[in-house]
Amino acid sequence: MFVIVMYDVHVKRVAKVLKTCRRYLYWVQNSVLEGEISKADFAALKRELAEIISPDHDSVLFYTFRTTRYTSRESIGIQKGGEDRFL
Amino acid sequence: MFVIVMYDVHVKRVAKVLKTCRRYLYWVQNSVLEGEISKADFAALKRELAEIISPDHDSVLFYTFRTTRYTSRESIGIQKGGEDRFL
Repeated sequence: MFVIVMYDVHVKRVAKVLKTCRRYLYWVQNSVLEGEISKADFAALKRELAEIISPDHDSVLFYTFRTTRYTSRESIGIQKGGEDRFL
Repeated sequence: MFVIVMYDVHVKRVAKVLKTCRRYLYWVQNSVLEGEISKADFAALKRELAEIISPDHDSVLFYTFRTTRYTSRESIGIQKGGEDRFL
């Protein structure tokens, strides 16, 4: 399945959250990552993130898709890096 | 089409960006909105946002989908409000 992850966590935990997400997904921009992921890995990612974040202050949002890809990804403003996998 | 919008803009411009996005989409969480949108409205939204943001400091990311809905949306941590349209 394909997943898009967006996190909003305290600056103290950003590096750890990003590092964990990067083990499974591609960084797109800022606090957004995406990629193909197995069900087992997705469960592991959520479990790992739940251990890192503060449930009262942070939040992580996951969109999952059966189909592998979105139709398009566009951005305006600055590009904050990340591998661009979209053709 | 269905669109997910994520913005990362200077705090000075957040209110205006959110207000503009809300005229077209539903607020999901933090700086994330989503919804069904026509091609014309999507073009209008991008045009309006491009006028508000600072292209050197802010960024807005748009994922568009032909199919109307994602398979699932999940979150961990705090729920920061927004209309929950997902069943």
